[in-house]
Amino acid sequence: MTLNGNLLVAGKEKRGSNGEFYATEAATGKSLPVSFAGASVDDVETAAAQAWEAFASYRETDLESRAAFLETIAAEIESIGDELIIRAMSETGLSRGRLEGERNRTTGQLRLFAKEVREGRFQELRFDAGDPSRKPVPKPDLRLRNVPVGPVAVFGASNFPLAFSVAGGDTASALAAGCPVVVKAHSAHPGTSELVGRAVQRAVEVRRLHPGTFSLLFDTGFEVGQKLVADHRIRAVGFTGSRRGGTALMEIASKRRQPIPVYAEMSSINPAILFPNALAKNVEGIAAAFVSSLVLGAGQFCTNPGLLLAIDGGALDAFIAQTAKLLTEVAPQAMLTPSIARTFCEGVERLRLHPEVRAVASGLPGSEFQGTAALFETTASAFLAHDELQNEVFGAAGIVVRCRDLTELETVIDALEGQLTVALFVNHDDEADARRLVPKLEMLAGRLLVNGFGTGVEVSPAMVHGGPYPATADGRSTSVGTLAIYRFLRPVSYQDFSTGLLPPALRNMKA
Amino acid sequence: MTLNGNLLVAGKEKRGSNGEFYATEAATGKSLPVSFAGASVDDVETAAAQAWEAFASYRETDLESRAAFLETIAAEIESIGDELIIRAMSETGLSRGRLEGERNRTTGQLRLFAKEVREGRFQELRFDAGDPSRKPVPKPDLRLRNVPVGPVAVFGASNFPLAFSVAGGDTASALAAGCPVVVKAHSAHPGTSELVGRAVQRAVEVRRLHPGTFSLLFDTGFEVGQKLVADHRIRAVGFTGSRRGGTALMEIASKRRQPIPVYAEMSSINPAILFPNALAKNVEGIAAAFVSSLVLGAGQFCTNPGLLLAIDGGALDAFIAQTAKLLTEVAPQAMLTPSIARTFCEGVERLRLHPEVRAVASGLPGSEFQGTAALFETTASAFLAHDELQNEVFGAAGIVVRCRDLTELETVIDALEGQLTVALFVNHDDEADARRLVPKLEMLAGRLLVNGFGTGVEVSPAMVHGGPYPATADGRSTSVGTLAIYRFLRPVSYQDFSTGLLPPALRNMKA
Repeated sequence: MTLNGNLLVAGKEKRGSNGEFYATEAATGKSLPVSFAGASVDDVETAAAQAWEAFASYRETDLESRAAFLETIAAEIESIGDELIIRAMSETGLSRGRLEGERNRTTGQLRLFAKEVREGRFQELRFDAGDPSRKPVPKPDLRLRNVPVGPVAVFGASNFPLAFSVAGGDTASALAAGCPVVVKAHSAHPGTSELVGRAVQRAVEVRRLHPGTFSLLFDTGFEVGQKLVADHRIRAVGFTGSRRGGTALMEIASKRRQPIPVYAEMSSINPAILFPNALAKNVEGIAAAFVSSLVLGAGQFCTNPGLLLAIDGGALDAFIAQTAKLLTEVAPQAMLTPSIARTFCEGVERLRLHPEVRAVASGLPGSEFQGTAALFETTASAFLAHDELQNEVFGAAGIVVRCRDLTELETVIDALEGQLTVALFVNHDDEADARRLVPKLEMLAGRLLVNGFGTGVEVSPAMVHGGPYPATADGRSTSVGTLAIYRFLRPVSYQDFSTGLLPPALRNMKA
Repeated sequence: MTLNGNLLVAGKEKRGSNGEFYATEAATGKSLPVSFAGASVDDVETAAAQAWEAFASYRETDLESRAAFLETIAAEIESIGDELIIRAMSETGLSRGRLEGERNRTTGQLRLFAKEVREGRFQELRFDAGDPSRKPVPKPDLRLRNVPVGPVAVFGASNFPLAFSVAGGDTASALAAGCPVVVKAHSAHPGTSELVGRAVQRAVEVRRLHPGTFSLLFDTGFEVGQKLVADHRIRAVGFTGSRRGGTALMEIASKRRQPIPVYAEMSSINPAILFPNALAKNVEGIAAAFVSSLVLGAGQFCTNPGLLLAIDGGALDAFIAQTAKLLTEVAPQAMLTPSIARTFCEGVERLRLHPEVRAVASGLPGSEFQGTAALFETTASAFLAHDELQNEVFGAAGIVVRCRDLTELETVIDALEGQLTVALFVNHDDEADARRLVPKLEMLAGRLLVNGFGTGVEVSPAMVHGGPYPATADGRSTSVGTLAIYRFLRPVSYQDFSTGLLPPALRNMKA
């Protein structure tokens, strides 16, 4: 396939007129071939208008057609072949193995939603039979189903160029719900975005859907995203990115004439709690697991373990020493963009210069485009006195907080903001203490896990990838797993409808 | 029972220190016996702190205990006896029949949620079995359940002193979800609120729950409500009232360090569409049903039919004439408060003076505390040119919009804001036209109904009492019916938990 940097607006391609940009090779900072062009306000207008028009027919697709569409997208992505992996490697600096895995995850996710659509449970069909003879007033015939909220704006994320981008979880779940999608491509991987965008566009054609069902827009700044979220035809937003970006979109959405939900996944340092017995028994194992999670994908996972809480003492000293030993051998890794590499470097530097923080170890140094893993430590009292130590440093940086005892550790937990995950390292002798903490941790995060770090996020029905603010804008939702579809649905009740007027799904129901 | 106007704070009663006020007899504007005293900032603080403390144990109650608690509240409300009805009649001006019916609705609602809790479906238990041998990475054991969001602030509504007040739908669904509740009583019926509040407090005692599970606060202004919504221990808000009040709470909630969801039901004019064939065949029947819905409870239903859309012509002329005839005989009715009566009167006056609006008919005149029903008419083009004609006039006032044809009628629909209900009057010959409109109406409202007005709101599993903004703050939710419980829940995923660490509900599951 030949990339050309065009916008994909409702089945057509179009050269953008709002500035030009090139993709950057993550490893070198050099421009990659093909210039991309930003969308104008008119392009946003057209994409939104076409999405709205498409909504009328797309929402009425039967479950089988909608499922087949999702499967066609998956097949079209696979049929791009190695070109997709090669371009994504250049643009993101991520490894072939990682990107091949991520492609599987992306197509698997589309197929999981196809299955979910076919099963139809998300429709939440309900029926209360009427009773005309009820006193004092007759009981109405009531039927309920979920309907899609309308066109959804999806913002591609830099850190998962396939699984959280153009045809990632937000797009898959919105399309599954019956919502057309307008994607604002992330400028860190425009070529990857175009390739996947064309695959979705082909699937729209193959399945003979309204072309407005999908559009892909590039942007050289923030204007396209802002206009999109403010457009009255857009009815929900999916976003994964920075806290600043997410809260900016939340504000735009809340100031519309009709406010809309923003599902922004923003910021999490994913605390891991090392209980004393588990730690004492397995210093080496936990240290190895920690370092491997910390540096995975250059630490650029939303679920990266940025905070370790443990009780001070010999086991913790041994753990820190072992972690330091492993870390010093970690090779530097290209980060997603030069700007992310710079921001990571500054974040690490801030920790290094912090008077209450001690640098424990660093990985091997690299170029200005690479991230060098870094571990720090501090005390619970310092952590509690300095809110800024809770700020996410996006990349392979972690901080160990030494707590006097479990009580102090619990105080630290009480001071934490909302998180995507909390990990507990426990053995049988810690279980009573851990059990006591679980209710508190449930209030803190969307996923709790035992004896492992949360870096891997299974795509399945019982997964929650979400959590209280600021982990996400809306702690009642998940952006991974089949529950993600509910973000784009709302219930409607039909009272005393004749069979002819009822939507087909509600016609033949048993109470 | 002797009313004393005290606050009920976490199992104790306490005289408020922040101003004093009396309930007003709705029919006369005179003060009723017993002075009530407003809560101070400290009282809010205590109620929120105690609710938070209670949350730890209340959320862990087993389903049977929680269901029994809801049933005990229902029984305690019944055991107040006629004193409740008499006080509510004085405070609200509503009739005995209406209030007895509303009491049944309120206790029935509590019992319906008890049943829902016992069935346990709201927990959304999910289980993905692990597979340690999966390649390239083992598949984790994942279990999911919904957990309660935390303490909920509930604002009593003036128009349903029982069903949407102290122990109404918001309180019942929050308690069912496992959330303690702090109620801000509506100053229009403080005595009714105290009586019901004491019933809930007794139920807390009888079921030996933490006293912080329920508190009731009075307020002479807005401070108590504002402080409550801003308190970091409050995690969601239930509100029914004005658009101004609701949006003020939304703003406070969005500016917290951790924003929280506000479920505000605010404003709806509940359009009814009179299709030409149905109207021509049944002018008298529809006119009678309309007038009876319009004046029900002095028009103070959220679902009051304030807007009729119909095609201009002889049938509509006949309908308007018949409606006028019925309306002129309607007796004036006491409104909920003198201030509501005044505001209604001003709203009616604004319509009367509007250059594009024609007054069709009024009911019989009454006192300054009573509302006189009023009907107006205008043209579609005038309605489209004047946004203010969409503003809700709370009370028995309606406006008929004459449309040239179905196309113009559809243009009016396109210009409407979100609604709680839309009614369609259709017969067989209108069905094709109506069917074409249904998808559009689904986007407009939470409940669509055929050949009836939406004034009655069934409390049942398939009911939606909600709708796109500004009908409610969050169009994905309902405040009536069993789905209302989901407003106060969020999903949590447990990965690789040992049986001993798992919450009991997740221990014995089959994939």
